[in-house]
Amino acid sequence: MKLLAIALLAAAAPPQQDAPKAPADIVATAPAADWVAIAPSDLLVMDLAPDAGGRARRVVIQLMPPPFSQGWIENIRALAAAHWWDGTSINRVQDNYVVQWGDPNGEDKAKAKPLPPGLKAVPQGAYLARHDSTVVSVQILDTPYAQADTFFRGWPIGAASGAAWPIHCYGMVGVGRDMPPDTGSGAELYAVIGHAPRQLDRNIALVGRVIDGIENLSSLPRGTEPLSFYKTAAERVPILRTRIASDLPAAEQPRFEYLSTESTSFAAYAAARANRRAQFFIAPAGGSDICNLPVPIRPQKG
Amino acid sequence: MKLLAIALLAAAAPPQQDAPKAPADIVATAPAADWVAIAPSDLLVMDLAPDAGGRARRVVIQLMPPPFSQGWIENIRALAAAHWWDGTSINRVQDNYVVQWGDPNGEDKAKAKPLPPGLKAVPQGAYLARHDSTVVSVQILDTPYAQADTFFRGWPIGAASGAAWPIHCYGMVGVGRDMPPDTGSGAELYAVIGHAPRQLDRNIALVGRVIDGIENLSSLPRGTEPLSFYKTAAERVPILRTRIASDLPAAEQPRFEYLSTESTSFAAYAAARANRRAQFFIAPAGGSDICNLPVPIRPQKG
Repeated sequence: MKLLAIALLAAAAPPQQDAPKAPADIVATAPAADWVAIAPSDLLVMDLAPDAGGRARRVVIQLMPPPFSQGWIENIRALAAAHWWDGTSINRVQDNYVVQWGDPNGEDKAKAKPLPPGLKAVPQGAYLARHDSTVVSVQILDTPYAQADTFFRGWPIGAASGAAWPIHCYGMVGVGRDMPPDTGSGAELYAVIGHAPRQLDRNIALVGRVIDGIENLSSLPRGTEPLSFYKTAAERVPILRTRIASDLPAAEQPRFEYLSTESTSFAAYAAARANRRAQFFIAPAGGSDICNLPVPIRPQKG
Repeated sequence: MKLLAIALLAAAAPPQQDAPKAPADIVATAPAADWVAIAPSDLLVMDLAPDAGGRARRVVIQLMPPPFSQGWIENIRALAAAHWWDGTSINRVQDNYVVQWGDPNGEDKAKAKPLPPGLKAVPQGAYLARHDSTVVSVQILDTPYAQADTFFRGWPIGAASGAAWPIHCYGMVGVGRDMPPDTGSGAELYAVIGHAPRQLDRNIALVGRVIDGIENLSSLPRGTEPLSFYKTAAERVPILRTRIASDLPAAEQPRFEYLSTESTSFAAYAAARANRRAQFFIAPAGGSDICNLPVPIRPQKG
């Protein structure tokens, strides 16, 4: 794996290009070899009920790779295989925070939808991965949250003191839980729809991110009950079905690819976002926090 | 003005309280003296057409105080006095970025709605204020964006090298412009509805923030044209009227107050957000970026 320090790359660049490339141009012209296909077996496809105008609403979630959160992800695969989410709903939409879905009666033992057998209780220790040679990547910047915010195989990762963990950027998907840290099964999920709530890092398990259709979650009406839960069943958007993409008919499987965060193209993209000079920018920022460096993801070509 | 370094306050606190207060509890119990009333003359009230269910949609924007962006704010006051926005619309909604409103034909000289007389061209230099004794405040943290991110009279402010400027946090409102930096009149406005796009700091004028009703902007359908502009007139939500609140009948004037960022309550709130220990938090972050420390604002009591 080729490791590149973005700060070094920026320093080594010619002093001032005549026409610096915008981040989008760098992504558009990145060589095919810098793109990594996402396996359909790592995609969770959630189909919501159509909107009032009859428009289909699909949300595609990429699941995180090892070594992160794999216990919960095993549960999520079991829940999808059991068709458990079919007939559940979007239950909470809180502005500048999260959209949450699952069983609207999950908190009520008498009414709760039974979970499929075989789900595992994942221990608190699984919120962290070991930060060793398996998780070493580009060090972008220092933040108050960690010694280093980095990218690893396409994901935003925090790292400190030998541990590494995923970061709550916009669109990331996590596992709701009760007070004890080992109570999240994966049946109750949420997606971030606001400024990165990084106080949740290391406190809730992140299992993936929305890579397509987030507007089908983020533009839903906000709930009016405490924590912005919906008040009535009529407000809750039904979830028609949720499947691992590789369990769908081949023609229906979504295909996406991401720009390798270990590529020179990504380093150039990140440097250009941190120091915008193209088009109307008159005062480059000189830096960027990791959640303002979204990993480019697009439908797979060809 | 009492200045408090939040890091110092945290260090001086007892080693570990038995029941640390959650940020919301600190805000709820802050003394009345720590709250500052917002003058109705500093509020811009925008009433959108009712939604499909007939529900009224109001957006309340607090305008920034001196020394920031006052040239554009003078224009905004003139535009509101001329009722210029009445009959314009929301024209662009881009996920995890901005909602933009004004004249949908503003780019077409033949069709553009004439601006009221007397608007001023505000020079590029006005993107920055002088950082001297008039703008000195709590230093929260260092970021890659500036030598120091601070709060000043209730607003998130970046500061470096003798200059200070407002920060593009969630909900902040700015002035759209064309390529030349002095082309924004204030007629075309946007609000941030995603992760802080801090690359815009010092590149576009910020004039205020949405303090009530942001869900009436952030939950709108996303546009499908380039830059997420709406394609058809039918998609654009009409703006019925926009007024400075003090020009409304007294009974209709919204009244809000904010928690003074120079108060000990705010310092305690920020420290508690940066190091959550209450309720289910098992791993305090040890810090927070400035946009994850939203200034508490509420309807005025009494």
